[in-house]
Amino acid sequence: MTTTDTSDIFEKKKSVLITNVVADGRPADIFIDAAETITDIGHDVRKRHRGEAEFIIDADGALALPGLANTHTHAAMTLLRGYADDMILQDWLSQKIWPLEAHLTGADVYWGTKLACLEMIRTGTTAFNDMYFFMEDAARAVDEAGIRAMLSYGFIDLGDAAKREHECRATEALVAHIKAMNNPRIRAAAGPHAPYTVSPEGLKWCAAFAKEQQTGIHIHLSETEKEVSDCLSLHGKRPAALLDECGILTPATVAAHGCWLDDAECTLLAERGVSVSHNPSSNMKLATHRALPYRELVRAGANVCLGTDGCASNNSLDLFSEVKCAALLQKFFWNDPTILPAPAALAMVTTNGAKALGLGPGTLAAGAPADIILVSSRIPCNTPLHNAASNLVYACSGAAVETTICNGRVLMLDREIPGESDIIKNAAQSAASLVKRAQTPA
Amino acid sequence: MTTTDTSDIFEKKKSVLITNVVADGRPADIFIDAAETITDIGHDVRKRHRGEAEFIIDADGALALPGLANTHTHAAMTLLRGYADDMILQDWLSQKIWPLEAHLTGADVYWGTKLACLEMIRTGTTAFNDMYFFMEDAARAVDEAGIRAMLSYGFIDLGDAAKREHECRATEALVAHIKAMNNPRIRAAAGPHAPYTVSPEGLKWCAAFAKEQQTGIHIHLSETEKEVSDCLSLHGKRPAALLDECGILTPATVAAHGCWLDDAECTLLAERGVSVSHNPSSNMKLATHRALPYRELVRAGANVCLGTDGCASNNSLDLFSEVKCAALLQKFFWNDPTILPAPAALAMVTTNGAKALGLGPGTLAAGAPADIILVSSRIPCNTPLHNAASNLVYACSGAAVETTICNGRVLMLDREIPGESDIIKNAAQSAASLVKRAQTPA
Repeated sequence: MTTTDTSDIFEKKKSVLITNVVADGRPADIFIDAAETITDIGHDVRKRHRGEAEFIIDADGALALPGLANTHTHAAMTLLRGYADDMILQDWLSQKIWPLEAHLTGADVYWGTKLACLEMIRTGTTAFNDMYFFMEDAARAVDEAGIRAMLSYGFIDLGDAAKREHECRATEALVAHIKAMNNPRIRAAAGPHAPYTVSPEGLKWCAAFAKEQQTGIHIHLSETEKEVSDCLSLHGKRPAALLDECGILTPATVAAHGCWLDDAECTLLAERGVSVSHNPSSNMKLATHRALPYRELVRAGANVCLGTDGCASNNSLDLFSEVKCAALLQKFFWNDPTILPAPAALAMVTTNGAKALGLGPGTLAAGAPADIILVSSRIPCNTPLHNAASNLVYACSGAAVETTICNGRVLMLDREIPGESDIIKNAAQSAASLVKRAQTPA
Repeated sequence: MTTTDTSDIFEKKKSVLITNVVADGRPADIFIDAAETITDIGHDVRKRHRGEAEFIIDADGALALPGLANTHTHAAMTLLRGYADDMILQDWLSQKIWPLEAHLTGADVYWGTKLACLEMIRTGTTAFNDMYFFMEDAARAVDEAGIRAMLSYGFIDLGDAAKREHECRATEALVAHIKAMNNPRIRAAAGPHAPYTVSPEGLKWCAAFAKEQQTGIHIHLSETEKEVSDCLSLHGKRPAALLDECGILTPATVAAHGCWLDDAECTLLAERGVSVSHNPSSNMKLATHRALPYRELVRAGANVCLGTDGCASNNSLDLFSEVKCAALLQKFFWNDPTILPAPAALAMVTTNGAKALGLGPGTLAAGAPADIILVSSRIPCNTPLHNAASNLVYACSGAAVETTICNGRVLMLDREIPGESDIIKNAAQSAASLVKRAQTPA
């Protein structure tokens, strides 16, 4: 790839002409006129706009794709990457993850989210759906990183009225904070953690608040078999029916995991317009023992997208690896090599992901958000190039991404991201300090 | 990473001092005295050997690992990467793969194997176990690439005596050719394709020939349920028992897949000293519907290693991705998140892989083969670095590898591989020409 003078390309938005890409199988150029959307795309764009471009990127035959959308993660858990693995879920949570999280600070979440954004930019993700704590600090990290996020505070009341009050105020504060930021890349969502950690009263409050504030809703749903049987015992109905009664199932809702959904729940989620985020690596690592019923959800008409989950349970934010994992897991678990073919798998992280997060069409077109990634075609994973969708899904990792643009701004160019070493150093220090604090008796 | 003058580091073997690595969790330097083995490794190696080193590589805290071993692949199938996916196994083979393979030439196999070696060097693999056709051309590619391989001709007689004679002669010719090459990095194996494609007579001939010539044996075993039921119908016994009767099960044998092995077969394979190569991505993509019984094999004492299978059914040769897939699939299928923890998964591609291919200890130690990879520690997948084995298995792809050394020779330095663009171009042309020939009526 060659470019014109790039001395300040990372600093501010300029008009950019990208030549020699392959988009949807056809040679094309792309022009972004210092705007947040794509101005022009097609085979003769360079003729029309060469004179206007302040920067020219010669993509040398790279595959151009819309920036990918990660629809379920806990970004700051990058700090816990590799801290505990290969354990029974309950031991892992109670002995390792929760004790460490009890010592988290806003500064930790800031650096953890900075590291997550760095990893996402490097691997072609330009939007993510996040749920965690100290989300004002996460918002600051996203603001600086230049990508898009829907941020929610993880609302957990465990049926306790006083705790519920606290969680309502925290949710209100985050939504007010994010609205005040007035950053078009950052939006808020209500984040009721799950049907088994939030009371029906808490769920209803979240649903009403999200409706009033016109925010999204982000929730975990039916990750484990035990959640479903507990819900049946406690409420006499399955989790999706409970959520529906509480008003949680809306077109602005993203429900993550969904491993143990039955056919009626698939139909219900589709009818309500809910987006379902498949998280195959996390489900396999924590041994959920059932894969998302992808085929039933699609048959019912649901929007199925993809998420990495947090780095404590994956342990990567690379959506290219995740999309391969999804295609493989669906084939293996449902015993049919034709399920989730490469183009459909790719749609999970492009069109379907964009729909889940309300981010436009998730395609490259004039007027669409200028969220663009360039994937090198001159590397082993794209050689030969019989079928781009197949190579992108089955052969490439996120390391194949060479350039990432979000909202019209170049965030990575030829694999260079400004400030990377500083983020790596500070996030590593933050993680080491967190572990040290957790191991020091109070 | 910084190095001294590297103008001819790729050209010939020189004495190399690698400083500032982390090996087995400890800071170390490594010295290779223009030899095929590691001369010295430890914390004060630089003091002892700085004066002798013609090249110094400052690894800047990179993780040093032994080069990885891929114990089951069909290297030249890189040319078929993405040619056909998401199909029923029998349709995929009969409508897509076999018709294309019927047009393969030696030149295709040469360029396909060159591309495979390039991809392996880039992702940290320094030895592979191969089975395909035109293997003299594959041997030439491996000779030039600088990595290690055990090469076998895929012996298939389908019970036909005339065909068997042809396959015997082809196997003899390959073994003679490779012995005549006298390259310590390249060895031959007998390659009886599978119990369902080779007659008992053919299997017995392969076993006797391998014993006489002191070569390895490379075979597919129990990939699909149908193979097992067919074997029971035809021979009245399960595949491993049939192979044992024919003398195929030896300490020099690598059996690939093994999805449908029962407990008695696990015990038999362990007793015979067979290495079993797990191929999780291929098994998931082609929907074998059962995962390798890893725990039973290990309990029985078998050596379990890892392979990517060929690029038509994976579609990548990146062992870092494959090792994650193995750890996830074992947990998910056998419903236990504690199976195949990160250190054991890593052992599959280091110590166990080296044992399978007869390549020394598969560790970094003075006297061990100088097959070394350096994995960057200053990148998101290794940040934070709570646990190196966890990050290597669950977070890193092969793109984290920055330097690859095999048999004492530097093959990739700081992600630079000489001649890469030429290989990419020629392999792509070879693949395009192959497809064109297959589509042209004879």
